[in-house]
Amino acid sequence: MDILALAPIAGALALVFVGYLAFHIARQDSGTERMKDIAEAIREGATAYLSRQYRTLAVFVIAVAVIVMLALDYRISIAYVAGSVCSVLAGFIGMRVAVLANVRTANAARKSLNKALSLAFKGGAVMGMSVVGLGLLGLSAFYYLYEDPNLIIGFSFGASSIALFARVGGGIYTKTADVGADLVGKIEAGIPEDDPRNPAVIADNVGDNVGDVAGMGADLFESYVSSIIATMIIGATVYGTKGVILPLLVAATGVLASIVAAFLVRTRERADPSFALNRGTFSACGLVTVAAYLMIQYVMGSDSGLGIFYATLSGLIAGVIVGVTSDYYTSGSRGPTRSIAKAARTGAATNVMTGFSYGMISTVVPVIGISLATLIAWYSAGIYGIAISAVGMLSITGMVVAADSYGPIVDNAGGIAEQSGLGKEVRKVTDALDSVGNTTKAICKGFAIGSAALTAIALFSAYSQVSGIETLDVLNPHVTLGLLIGAAIPALFCGLAILAVGKNSFRMVEEVRRQFREIPGLMEGKARPDYSRCVDISTKGALRELIAPGISAIAAPLIVGFIFGRHALGGMLAGSIVTGLILALFMANAGGAWDNAKKYIEAGNLGGKGTATHASAVVGDTVGDPFKDTAGPSLNILIKLMSIVALVFAPLFVMYALA
Amino acid sequence: MDILALAPIAGALALVFVGYLAFHIARQDSGTERMKDIAEAIREGATAYLSRQYRTLAVFVIAVAVIVMLALDYRISIAYVAGSVCSVLAGFIGMRVAVLANVRTANAARKSLNKALSLAFKGGAVMGMSVVGLGLLGLSAFYYLYEDPNLIIGFSFGASSIALFARVGGGIYTKTADVGADLVGKIEAGIPEDDPRNPAVIADNVGDNVGDVAGMGADLFESYVSSIIATMIIGATVYGTKGVILPLLVAATGVLASIVAAFLVRTRERADPSFALNRGTFSACGLVTVAAYLMIQYVMGSDSGLGIFYATLSGLIAGVIVGVTSDYYTSGSRGPTRSIAKAARTGAATNVMTGFSYGMISTVVPVIGISLATLIAWYSAGIYGIAISAVGMLSITGMVVAADSYGPIVDNAGGIAEQSGLGKEVRKVTDALDSVGNTTKAICKGFAIGSAALTAIALFSAYSQVSGIETLDVLNPHVTLGLLIGAAIPALFCGLAILAVGKNSFRMVEEVRRQFREIPGLMEGKARPDYSRCVDISTKGALRELIAPGISAIAAPLIVGFIFGRHALGGMLAGSIVTGLILALFMANAGGAWDNAKKYIEAGNLGGKGTATHASAVVGDTVGDPFKDTAGPSLNILIKLMSIVALVFAPLFVMYALA
Repeated sequence: MDILALAPIAGALALVFVGYLAFHIARQDSGTERMKDIAEAIREGATAYLSRQYRTLAVFVIAVAVIVMLALDYRISIAYVAGSVCSVLAGFIGMRVAVLANVRTANAARKSLNKALSLAFKGGAVMGMSVVGLGLLGLSAFYYLYEDPNLIIGFSFGASSIALFARVGGGIYTKTADVGADLVGKIEAGIPEDDPRNPAVIADNVGDNVGDVAGMGADLFESYVSSIIATMIIGATVYGTKGVILPLLVAATGVLASIVAAFLVRTRERADPSFALNRGTFSACGLVTVAAYLMIQYVMGSDSGLGIFYATLSGLIAGVIVGVTSDYYTSGSRGPTRSIAKAARTGAATNVMTGFSYGMISTVVPVIGISLATLIAWYSAGIYGIAISAVGMLSITGMVVAADSYGPIVDNAGGIAEQSGLGKEVRKVTDALDSVGNTTKAICKGFAIGSAALTAIALFSAYSQVSGIETLDVLNPHVTLGLLIGAAIPALFCGLAILAVGKNSFRMVEEVRRQFREIPGLMEGKARPDYSRCVDISTKGALRELIAPGISAIAAPLIVGFIFGRHALGGMLAGSIVTGLILALFMANAGGAWDNAKKYIEAGNLGGKGTATHASAVVGDTVGDPFKDTAGPSLNILIKLMSIVALVFAPLFVMYALA
Repeated sequence: MDILALAPIAGALALVFVGYLAFHIARQDSGTERMKDIAEAIREGATAYLSRQYRTLAVFVIAVAVIVMLALDYRISIAYVAGSVCSVLAGFIGMRVAVLANVRTANAARKSLNKALSLAFKGGAVMGMSVVGLGLLGLSAFYYLYEDPNLIIGFSFGASSIALFARVGGGIYTKTADVGADLVGKIEAGIPEDDPRNPAVIADNVGDNVGDVAGMGADLFESYVSSIIATMIIGATVYGTKGVILPLLVAATGVLASIVAAFLVRTRERADPSFALNRGTFSACGLVTVAAYLMIQYVMGSDSGLGIFYATLSGLIAGVIVGVTSDYYTSGSRGPTRSIAKAARTGAATNVMTGFSYGMISTVVPVIGISLATLIAWYSAGIYGIAISAVGMLSITGMVVAADSYGPIVDNAGGIAEQSGLGKEVRKVTDALDSVGNTTKAICKGFAIGSAALTAIALFSAYSQVSGIETLDVLNPHVTLGLLIGAAIPALFCGLAILAVGKNSFRMVEEVRRQFREIPGLMEGKARPDYSRCVDISTKGALRELIAPGISAIAAPLIVGFIFGRHALGGMLAGSIVTGLILALFMANAGGAWDNAKKYIEAGNLGGKGTATHASAVVGDTVGDPFKDTAGPSLNILIKLMSIVALVFAPLFVMYALA
């Protein structure tokens, strides 16, 4: 079928677009010497982290590749390595350009809001388009090579392995630095955010890139390729070749729609920049709906086409529902966040309790949305419908990642503006851009969680098919056992991730305190702090603390699968998806709400900065930081990784399991 | 079968024992006039709460009874009312005697540790024996009357309704008072715990009885009768009459074992009183194991008897595992709690984060224990085995509730000693008794959660049988939908319960602040605060804030059952049990650990009281209070209540559901 060529073409086009954007950004002026210095320090820190991470990763990837080759098939092993490399490459490109874009955005903010917005968004679009471009190109190449989706799954497993490191490690990195910088800097020393006297400030800026750009990119790269492959695997059985190529083609239409939509992100001076970003996202949704409809009708014919289209659309709508709910529960202009801010008047404890409660409550609507989408998808097109609804949701990944990576770039731009003393006017522009970034961030986090859940459900369906499970009966005690144990794993993972941040930020706090104590003239701004020591603590700690949760995520499905059998493992996947989804939504939304409650007070409400109310809100914000930026996003990885491990090793469980 | 008479005889014996204990306690001296005054105030507050609660309850119970009569069967309706009345009666007796025992324990502490321990334990035993006595007597009576367990289920539904009010309402009450008293008293005004100048102090003392005595009693009353009935329902199909009467007889052996064990709770002066309590609990376990073995062999014969015994034993062991794990994660002498205390050195946020993490991690071992118990029970005796394992665990309910109710009695005794100025020596005795109370409390909370989970699983199994579900296939999208929505409900419930405490304690804080501001001489101890206003705020608020979570717990299974069908409802029960169990364990253990981390610091470690570290630990403790005493225990009720609603209305879903 010639139409299939559209998939690699769209992928290649996305990469051409990346080249154009990168070239355009690099040509912009990066401002004063001081600005260049700071940007250079951030770039160095980010590179240092990446290179150390890559070395650890290389060992890990090679080891797993050998195991896969020996236990399963060398072709899966090759796809595994390729998937890892593509994910790393996407993260590397995205981050390199992001650290070019941040200082240029700060410089552009000296002249024009529109120019700054446009640059920051272009920087984000590099990450977004790298993800979808490399994802689609890689998958198409392996499809031409292998033709069998059960071998291509290795590509997805590779993406998962990288996502584990990039998302969980990145999450630990960024919060170690952030908590360390805030606890000593803001609270003990009483100096403002992004103050150059704070030894952890560069590590904090690096963390934005490491966690929010590279981490989010790897997370969605994984969802993107996994949802497509899961659909291909199911499609092969249900519809033959047509069913296999359709997800690639739907994804291709999504890439084209995202490229077109990216050109619509621009704003006028004095206009609300959030309008520009939302226009981009909703245009992408609209375009992809029309294009996917035509594509599905063309490939599948009018018989099964309409049902599959409805399934695809239900996923896209579920994504919007999750995003909008996240926005409602975390926006500073809505009831929940305002209540959390008000609760800070009676102290830190009531602030924490209220944020916790709204976070819990915020899980209900997205869960109903996702479960109804699953039901509709199933009635429209059976199990294939469930899988392709994930593809539908993820078709706009390019645009979503672009809008999300915009956030840390303008955050960094603000930091650079502050540290180089660019003055209040410039800071006002970067703050305006940043406040938009926070809403988009919340929406994208919701999107990342929703898509992870749908992807995991798709992978779970594929696992059941591949391992020959006809019914997964909850009344079977093996399934019950799996369900219960699976449900506990996200809790374990969360706990370990937050403890990791706690332990590591404790080291950071000690170091920052030591520098304030031992470097004479630091507080007066006469001496330079030793930024690199702090960067180093974040880096080393992130990789070390990653080990325990990482191993448990890979080992748990293998142990349960081999000891209690494939039905127990199926139950375990179901259990982990269920609690993983709930906890991820809770953590993202509670964290976002605490953050914005603090910002609401800082905007002058309820007494503003410097009051006891504000100090209480800072506690909530600090608790929420590892919730929303470490543990919560890590759960996306966990549920997908466990499902992929199950799917990859399914043939072995069927043969060798004890039960 | 004549042997069945043993069930009502054991029940009656338990009530005779209650009478003896109550008479013995009432005869003791209640000390000085000041002590009597305070005890009277607590008694009045408790009675005021109960009478208001009963009035609300009466309306609710009558309304539900009419619905059940019209929709199902008048016999179920009668059993429903009887179950409600028995639960209310147990709570009433337990609490009335507890508020007699507290002041007498304080008085006894002036003379002897052993006397005080013995009195407090006897007070607790009244609650424990009332629960099992009324439960067993009521169930036996209805069995003689109806012979059909499917009609007796109404008794269990009644117990559930009361548990909802007593546990959720009581939980909101107690934490409203506690948080209110602590936030203003300890933190703002800087006066110690239980200081008579604090206007919320009486409400706080009442709360201990309302939440921890009556609430816990109603919770375990519900588990107790529900696990027995679920086993009876399943037994009727699997083994006929033998299968129906066996759970009643196993429960009867447990009652007898608990009575014997209660006599073993005594200590020497200067001995560690925890030894005495543990001796009681473990003796009960040992006795019931032997007695249950003989009873099962006698009733079932050696063919199926051994398997059923193993199933019974596996539940009992799971209970011990959950309890021991709770102790490990919450004990002040263990690693987790010490780490939480240490984390307070870097502030409230790190203290909260660390407690949160260990709470999450603490869920793993109990979940593995419960799931293995379920698996073993199933392999030993099929679905009947799963149900009777819950009965096995709950056979020692009498002893567990006794040891647990001991906690609030000595807590109250300490409060009375403090407020009446009995001096340091007396306070030292009550503190020694109290510190034991905290460990038993943690263990009992674990036991309550574990038994709620096993009971809910038993009810869920009975539901599947009654509604004719052969397989509950997770790959069926109705089940998936149910699973996802069910998983979100405990989160919603938690969120609502904690918000309720937040809202209500906010009112309390305002009131306490007002009294400190407006009553002249209060701070100097010259004027008496208006205790009753605070009691009133707690009472009204608890009942008002109960409405939203209560309605959602009853409405959710009905909505899902009627719209999406019985399979979706089955999935929903499974989802809610799974996340309900995880969240309940998390909340109980995190809350207990924060509490004991604070106490560890107060014992003089890490700088002790009055330091910034201590202030940070107080924040964690305050956050943990509604976790462990409101939201966490409420989840026990939620998962059982939803399962019972499903089971009671199962015939209607089969006939009238849309899907």
